[in-house]
Amino acid sequence: MKLIKHILITTALVSAATLTAAPTLAAEKLSMATSWGGGPPLESWAKGFANTVKDLTAGEVEIEVFTAGTLGSPLKVAETVKNGVAEAGNTFIGYEYGLDKTTVLFAGRPGGLNAEQMIHWLNQGGGLEMWREYRLETAGVVGLPCAYVPREGGMFSKRKVQSIKDFDGLKLRTAGAWSEISADLGVSTVVTPGAEVYQALERGVVDAVEWSALSLNQSSGFHKIAPYIVLPGFHQSTVIIECSFNKEAWDKLSDQNQRLIEAAAYINAHRVYEETGNNDADAYAFFKDAGTEFVVVDDEVLNKVQELTVAWEDKTAAEAGSWFQKVLDHQRAFQARWANAHEYRDSKPSR
Amino acid sequence: MKLIKHILITTALVSAATLTAAPTLAAEKLSMATSWGGGPPLESWAKGFANTVKDLTAGEVEIEVFTAGTLGSPLKVAETVKNGVAEAGNTFIGYEYGLDKTTVLFAGRPGGLNAEQMIHWLNQGGGLEMWREYRLETAGVVGLPCAYVPREGGMFSKRKVQSIKDFDGLKLRTAGAWSEISADLGVSTVVTPGAEVYQALERGVVDAVEWSALSLNQSSGFHKIAPYIVLPGFHQSTVIIECSFNKEAWDKLSDQNQRLIEAAAYINAHRVYEETGNNDADAYAFFKDAGTEFVVVDDEVLNKVQELTVAWEDKTAAEAGSWFQKVLDHQRAFQARWANAHEYRDSKPSR
Repeated sequence: MKLIKHILITTALVSAATLTAAPTLAAEKLSMATSWGGGPPLESWAKGFANTVKDLTAGEVEIEVFTAGTLGSPLKVAETVKNGVAEAGNTFIGYEYGLDKTTVLFAGRPGGLNAEQMIHWLNQGGGLEMWREYRLETAGVVGLPCAYVPREGGMFSKRKVQSIKDFDGLKLRTAGAWSEISADLGVSTVVTPGAEVYQALERGVVDAVEWSALSLNQSSGFHKIAPYIVLPGFHQSTVIIECSFNKEAWDKLSDQNQRLIEAAAYINAHRVYEETGNNDADAYAFFKDAGTEFVVVDDEVLNKVQELTVAWEDKTAAEAGSWFQKVLDHQRAFQARWANAHEYRDSKPSR
Repeated sequence: MKLIKHILITTALVSAATLTAAPTLAAEKLSMATSWGGGPPLESWAKGFANTVKDLTAGEVEIEVFTAGTLGSPLKVAETVKNGVAEAGNTFIGYEYGLDKTTVLFAGRPGGLNAEQMIHWLNQGGGLEMWREYRLETAGVVGLPCAYVPREGGMFSKRKVQSIKDFDGLKLRTAGAWSEISADLGVSTVVTPGAEVYQALERGVVDAVEWSALSLNQSSGFHKIAPYIVLPGFHQSTVIIECSFNKEAWDKLSDQNQRLIEAAAYINAHRVYEETGNNDADAYAFFKDAGTEFVVVDDEVLNKVQELTVAWEDKTAAEAGSWFQKVLDHQRAFQARWANAHEYRDSKPSR
């Protein structure tokens, strides 16, 4: 890591020299490890947050964002941050599913709180407090949700998948909880790193792939080799991204800068949600224009997925211990409170 | 206004004396005129914003919030702010409907963008830029949306209203665009100030009333005299509240404080949306427990309302001039882009 530290210091000096600085305190410089190779996740999720922090703190806190793998493993960002190899991180904590299945309850998953519910649960339902306590206790980092993503865009598929029986024998690239749950639908899953997803679909290693929101898939090229997009993205009701901080580095920040960083996380999280939602509308039109066929699955599929998910939740709660059970119960109680929300919140008339 | 100014200065001195202040610049003190007599609108919408501004600016900008009528007319807050009687304001700009019907396109109204669409339009679709330009040009204030409220809770009604024919002859307390549009359903409307709504319903001056979100109606007592709540609140798809600033007072603020106030408006707007949505779930349970019957209107009502609304929009655009037409076209284009959003965004499985 010595080389990296040196680069950081050099960058810091150059930045300082180009500042026409107000009479502020010396800028705090933090390095940020991420899971993202580039494109929208890096630019919008990680750099968007860093920019907001810089804006709100008037340059007092600067976060230098590094691409995946530059600082530690892209799938173990919290570990990198906890160990102090980076002072900050940006990741989908569902990547830590192998370490602790509780992560997917916070990060978004099949059958969980949808984006609207998750945003309300985090900010008004006690979710944020649970997140921070859970991450400090189990991952050793100060964790803040800092990007919300609407429901993902479903599968790009080489064959039409609409009824329950169509799932039988489907070879699917996926990850996390859905790779377990979908097995009960007869799906055989292949877990591939992001960079190999396209090739797996092209070469027929899989029949279908799921990978992020519609707009984040626009540049993937999946639609050139898969004629169908299967909706809705029931495999991932929402995606929540974490900005994490090394505990010591966090504690060194002033109270005011901590408060402004928390505000930046709130602003950035909502901005990403709105940006993605808005871009998804264009992406939908883009795929339509490209001749992609949208297939909405039958209600029987949604009901079956729900049934399988509840069974998976109950089984996992029994195996995975107290945090999983605690968060699951809390989220289920929240969903129950919202069970009739469609009566007073829904979008009708929906023109 | 002398008395008010004196009170302000006294309060400022007391606050300053109790501060264990950081080495900040002298605090900017702004007075805020509102439309709210008290309760959730005042506490959550106006004071919530003032608190966020104070937090983010580390006390450099303090906003003193005044109840309705203390500084100018509660229904003409922008005028009060423009004239400098107050440096800031907090209102529903739909109250200025009599001056300019365009206000309801921004503020929320029957048949318009729903809350989800409005939030995306404002923050990603160009709506915020139109809002600021429109308000500066026509009302002479720097306007920022600073509270979003989900769809309102429908009518409290003494008689069951479900089909189109049930609306015929209904005496309804309402306001704004809906008082015009509902006439085509055979509704006769009575416009009463907030404080007199309860009495009008109790004494039978009206059969039904609509007034705000479910949770804001919880303490109204309407349910004690009206056995039905008629859903959804198609008369008001969302409510957007404005924080306004006197142009001269705004221009005196530092760039950084302007930026932090804009951030505070963004944060407060989303916080109110989440708080209200969360409280609405409890309010729904409260009214259920109280024995109130929820009636969801037939689809024919929603379709008819939509048809009447489009006709009203077209007529008003022809009469009201260029801003109305410009904003309407912009919002309609945005809605058209989102027409298929339910396929990829919706909450199914909805348990």
